[in-house]
Amino acid sequence: MREVAIIGVGMTKFGKFLDKTIKELTRDACWMAVKDANINPREIGIAYFANSFGGRLWGQDSVRGQVALREIGIGGIPIINVENACAGGSTAFFEAWMAVGSGLFDVALAIGAEKLFCGETARSLDALSRVSDVEMEGQMGFNMPAIYAMRMRKHMAAFGTTRRQMALVSVKNHKNGCLNPYAQYQQEVTVEEVLNSRMIVDPITLLMAAPLGDGAAASVICSKEMAHKYTNRLVIVAASVVTSAEIKDIRVSDSANGVEKAAKSAYEMSGIGPGDIDVAEVHDAMAPAEILHYENLGFCREGEGGILVEQGETEIQGRIPVNTSGGLAAKGHPVAATGLAQIAEIVWQLRGEAGKRQVNRPQVGLIENGGGNVGGETAAVSIQILKK
Amino acid sequence: MREVAIIGVGMTKFGKFLDKTIKELTRDACWMAVKDANINPREIGIAYFANSFGGRLWGQDSVRGQVALREIGIGGIPIINVENACAGGSTAFFEAWMAVGSGLFDVALAIGAEKLFCGETARSLDALSRVSDVEMEGQMGFNMPAIYAMRMRKHMAAFGTTRRQMALVSVKNHKNGCLNPYAQYQQEVTVEEVLNSRMIVDPITLLMAAPLGDGAAASVICSKEMAHKYTNRLVIVAASVVTSAEIKDIRVSDSANGVEKAAKSAYEMSGIGPGDIDVAEVHDAMAPAEILHYENLGFCREGEGGILVEQGETEIQGRIPVNTSGGLAAKGHPVAATGLAQIAEIVWQLRGEAGKRQVNRPQVGLIENGGGNVGGETAAVSIQILKK
Repeated sequence: MREVAIIGVGMTKFGKFLDKTIKELTRDACWMAVKDANINPREIGIAYFANSFGGRLWGQDSVRGQVALREIGIGGIPIINVENACAGGSTAFFEAWMAVGSGLFDVALAIGAEKLFCGETARSLDALSRVSDVEMEGQMGFNMPAIYAMRMRKHMAAFGTTRRQMALVSVKNHKNGCLNPYAQYQQEVTVEEVLNSRMIVDPITLLMAAPLGDGAAASVICSKEMAHKYTNRLVIVAASVVTSAEIKDIRVSDSANGVEKAAKSAYEMSGIGPGDIDVAEVHDAMAPAEILHYENLGFCREGEGGILVEQGETEIQGRIPVNTSGGLAAKGHPVAATGLAQIAEIVWQLRGEAGKRQVNRPQVGLIENGGGNVGGETAAVSIQILKK
Repeated sequence: MREVAIIGVGMTKFGKFLDKTIKELTRDACWMAVKDANINPREIGIAYFANSFGGRLWGQDSVRGQVALREIGIGGIPIINVENACAGGSTAFFEAWMAVGSGLFDVALAIGAEKLFCGETARSLDALSRVSDVEMEGQMGFNMPAIYAMRMRKHMAAFGTTRRQMALVSVKNHKNGCLNPYAQYQQEVTVEEVLNSRMIVDPITLLMAAPLGDGAAASVICSKEMAHKYTNRLVIVAASVVTSAEIKDIRVSDSANGVEKAAKSAYEMSGIGPGDIDVAEVHDAMAPAEILHYENLGFCREGEGGILVEQGETEIQGRIPVNTSGGLAAKGHPVAATGLAQIAEIVWQLRGEAGKRQVNRPQVGLIENGGGNVGGETAAVSIQILKK
């Protein structure tokens, strides 16, 4: 594998856009990434398109990427449709990274696009229920909020993690969302508001849960040697890992051990440790899960995640800022777009372009993105380094 | 990219299996490939799972590969779901080839599984209509049989290709299907029967069209250096290409120019020419299309495809045997399984394991697999070489 750089990123605002199609969202995110990369779109050698619910909510199967990309004239190249639940965007990124790293392609485009709002909430929720085995977890009612709730209950019992600590994650991420023009929610919430909002699955309340959302995000990826042609603000991909937990080791109530495994691989691949990470975007589909991710990523010791957020260590001005974008809880979570939106945030942070939510001169960023739950869920971790 | 070998292949019989689930079909094809490869399944480093209509006909989105593979204990590794209409299987193969070729993984599994029979033909046909843009070709009635019919009419007008020549492709492929225990149709048909069967879209009749089908196929792929550990019947992947036609050049009535482009790339990548091919599997979803593929792959000159089949050159005993398996027309076409079933046939041919349909000592095989139609369709071409 040769070295690979991210030379352009783009994303739409996340939100409820009943008047916009996936084609339009794809167009906006892709052109932004292409323009940011300063490339001629004809230089793109291969494209990976992630989308999870287009079959069910848009009516388009099989060739979603081809359909969405021809609207902006991108064709005549391999267009690979990938699906991996909430980790679809990271999966597209991982494949694009491998395609360039292998030497077969010089420039790759990774896109994640999703429309969850379709005019009928019941249909959106029905679609979302398909990220587990419909015949197993689906029948048993193990939807994702339930799984997260079990994990948090276990963490509370084992380590004394408090509801207030869990609410603090949501408070922090909503505060960050106010600083992000692309965030779906740009409104602060208080601990009391979070704790008193409607109970979804104890201990998870409404204001801890990521909203339904529409949106798209994209990255342009390029070999390091070619990247110098386009930019002098090079963001190098030091590691990209997609994996899943071992089935035999799994209890649904275990905190995502796939994340720990993916992080371990990513740290080994890059020679970077948790102490070197200056800024991170993690998968807080239910805000309290961020506490588990702190631990699985090695930002603190096991059981100390609640204390980390309580002490403000993961604030923008803290020791290890997490989810400066607002995270899934506030920025929004249009399923397959999320992983690439996380990449966009880290690239902006490393390049010093994150505006009011800018972390002080970060050099190394990490992304953690999870997907589905079928015994062991998909865990994607990637590490980016700024090279001047 | 390092050199890559196919060390194991497997497939289920294709057919109508109302009592079998995608999970069961996946299991059967995967275990056959794993056993053929003589590996411990725990050595598999990454899996690519292709399926097109599981969302619509099975009810499972987002994590189809994880769901199907955990049934056989495969987990704890990256499982990447890909979708690319009728070229899904080849897309999984291409990605698996790149994953191993890049050096990141030593052993990869590529699976294609599809169930088109769901108890209601209308639902199956509705699903199949989603391989074009539902808002464009879909609304205009440009389904695949119509597109193939336009291409054949054009070929008839330009080159005098006859209905009898087109029927002969179907006669040949049904004859081959009788020799293949995995084929959905194992019954010979005559030219008269083909021509007098129900007209679907002039000039395509019922007996020229691939049937609805259920089935799965799989390949185990490995680096060449490691492959020697498992087998001495090495089949090397000399080229694997996935691409699509340039949108600007496309008229739907044009014979698939993506195939010509993919073939050109595959010949360049491998240093092999059309004259070196000893056996080929091509995408005869509508049997007459095989005539176009002969020309696009360089097996004969433009306009002479009809004559090639008429002269028996593409029979099992001919100069360049094509679709010895029965092709899509007789072996069947469970959409995402097809590309990997083509691979299986070529591997068996090269290893001399094709039984009654064995070609005389082939050394080089070619696969052509097409998918979807969105301006320019996906074309996949790969070339395999036997290394002793």
